[in-house]
Amino acid sequence: MAGNYYTEQSPGRTLYGEFMTAKSRRRIGGASGEDDLLARIRSALTGLRAGASTLRIAIGDDAAIFRPRPGHETILSCDWFLQGTHFLPDLDPPHSVGWKSLARAVSDLAAMGAEPRCFLMSIALPASHTSQWLGELLRGLRSASSKLNCTAAGGDTTRGDRVLINMTVIGECRRGRAVLRSGAGPGDAIFVSGRLGEAELGLRLVRSSKGQIDSRDPRVRKHLYPQPRLALGAWLSRQRLATSMMDLSDGLSSDLPRLCEASRVGARIEAGQVPCVNPSEVDTRKYDAHELALHGGDDYELLFTVARQRISRIPRRFGGIPITLIGRVIREKSILIKINSLEEIPLTKKGWDPFRK
Amino acid sequence: MAGNYYTEQSPGRTLYGEFMTAKSRRRIGGASGEDDLLARIRSALTGLRAGASTLRIAIGDDAAIFRPRPGHETILSCDWFLQGTHFLPDLDPPHSVGWKSLARAVSDLAAMGAEPRCFLMSIALPASHTSQWLGELLRGLRSASSKLNCTAAGGDTTRGDRVLINMTVIGECRRGRAVLRSGAGPGDAIFVSGRLGEAELGLRLVRSSKGQIDSRDPRVRKHLYPQPRLALGAWLSRQRLATSMMDLSDGLSSDLPRLCEASRVGARIEAGQVPCVNPSEVDTRKYDAHELALHGGDDYELLFTVARQRISRIPRRFGGIPITLIGRVIREKSILIKINSLEEIPLTKKGWDPFRK
Repeated sequence: MAGNYYTEQSPGRTLYGEFMTAKSRRRIGGASGEDDLLARIRSALTGLRAGASTLRIAIGDDAAIFRPRPGHETILSCDWFLQGTHFLPDLDPPHSVGWKSLARAVSDLAAMGAEPRCFLMSIALPASHTSQWLGELLRGLRSASSKLNCTAAGGDTTRGDRVLINMTVIGECRRGRAVLRSGAGPGDAIFVSGRLGEAELGLRLVRSSKGQIDSRDPRVRKHLYPQPRLALGAWLSRQRLATSMMDLSDGLSSDLPRLCEASRVGARIEAGQVPCVNPSEVDTRKYDAHELALHGGDDYELLFTVARQRISRIPRRFGGIPITLIGRVIREKSILIKINSLEEIPLTKKGWDPFRK
Repeated sequence: MAGNYYTEQSPGRTLYGEFMTAKSRRRIGGASGEDDLLARIRSALTGLRAGASTLRIAIGDDAAIFRPRPGHETILSCDWFLQGTHFLPDLDPPHSVGWKSLARAVSDLAAMGAEPRCFLMSIALPASHTSQWLGELLRGLRSASSKLNCTAAGGDTTRGDRVLINMTVIGECRRGRAVLRSGAGPGDAIFVSGRLGEAELGLRLVRSSKGQIDSRDPRVRKHLYPQPRLALGAWLSRQRLATSMMDLSDGLSSDLPRLCEASRVGARIEAGQVPCVNPSEVDTRKYDAHELALHGGDDYELLFTVARQRISRIPRRFGGIPITLIGRVIREKSILIKINSLEEIPLTKKGWDPFRK
């Protein structure tokens, strides 16, 4: 079968992903359990129709083979997704872990304006998680793979004392069209998609739920099932409208300085303009919608800048998602937030950093 | 600076790798320690002259940008390298951990006949390992990056309670020239490079050394500093000599069945032909050179098959490394080992499997 796939090249054909042999320090053991696990993962992720005819993936091999589209560049990103650090084993359902592990990595492709092509998943599992839990994870992953048009190309498995996932995603962008963080210039308008702080609120609701989560609640869904803004990112790239772009993963107050640093500029944003969780949806005794919007992470919305003369080309909504002008790029390398017409203060990073307690 | 790299495209220029922002579940914290760590990793891996003019890597961005060579396919692989599972924190020097994390992943590229281009390193670290230990690891990694002509393109960092590494490598191969596992046919000769079991012996010597390892000992060096057989793999691909190929990571008795399964064939190997550690170098009271050669892992030598009529084109040595004919591909789907002229038994898998205790 693999031989067939090696030569067959018809466009739009069904592609099969393959998990490569784990490289592992050897220990003399019994019969193989790893090959069985690989077969199971493979079968759960195969049979999806690929969106692109440019993929060529070897079955059962040392590596995956990707045939790039002419005139395109390949966009590559990888992301940790670790039990206890990036997801909560007892609270986040495995189906969501599968979805989110891919969706958040694909969000990096959206942030470049790229189209997803395929992914490699490395997963380490305790023996206790190789049965039903893994089955649910693979269902969620398969669903993300299908929805985001990103095919399983391979990966690596090993045993772990907890669940460790590393996801590498491969996308494509027309040559020279990838939108970097570094192109913002003074005077550019700063936009964000969506409403910020929803995922943070969703996380807090899950944490305080004592296991009884309502996965239909849109705030909880935003935490469990983030939606990378692929269509918006690709449109901005195609129309050459964004001078710079990134996705919001660690919170606006952490990520905006990164975009500004890459572009060697500063920013002035208006507190009142930052799109928040609808106040009617928040228990204001417990949560501050503005704090959530400035510092909450995991929204996977897009932050992008647009030259002054092209602002009018940015719609107020794109595919049902609000697009909001929140401020301007400034020459001075400071990140400032206007509280009201008189008061302006530096925006302090309060987003999440794993190296700070 | 990043803007410059975005537009600059001159061949053979110096490339700089970049570590992308970690996606992490957010927690309200203090000032950033993660950005400092990223800057440190970046600076340790930059300034190497890249071998290829086809790489284009964005600085400080959400993803890396890779410009594929015309007429080539992109080869992708990823590998776990976990403290306690794949390396021993107290015995394996961090310099070797850095080297080996890249070298073993690059070995998958060698196994396809591909040339390495760049890598993405995901690393999780305990706070105790962000100082001197990390510095040594980065020195070893930089050395592998330079020697193997594989440039840092990005990665992800987070905190971990132990050291977790996942390495994604990107290589290129002329269109249609990647050597798969699946092309072996009955009658083909089976070859291996190097001497098998050396790395396993090196590991055992390190384990019994009580921390006093002699890193000049070639067997210990093979464990600490494996050398992917890039030149041999590329030559076999270029000359279209190998009908199938893979690298030996889990041991011949585990890996040969994988090649045979992918090719839907079997194999008959001759015990006396399998190249072993030189008996004069082994304490035969403790170690059996044949057992080491059949079941020891981590050698990262190449296992490949050659059609009968082209056997004479395979040299006995390639770049100083012995190349040995060890058996034949057979139609029957069994893996057999000839002990002597009369006796032939099934070769039992005893390579390492992380899911078996």
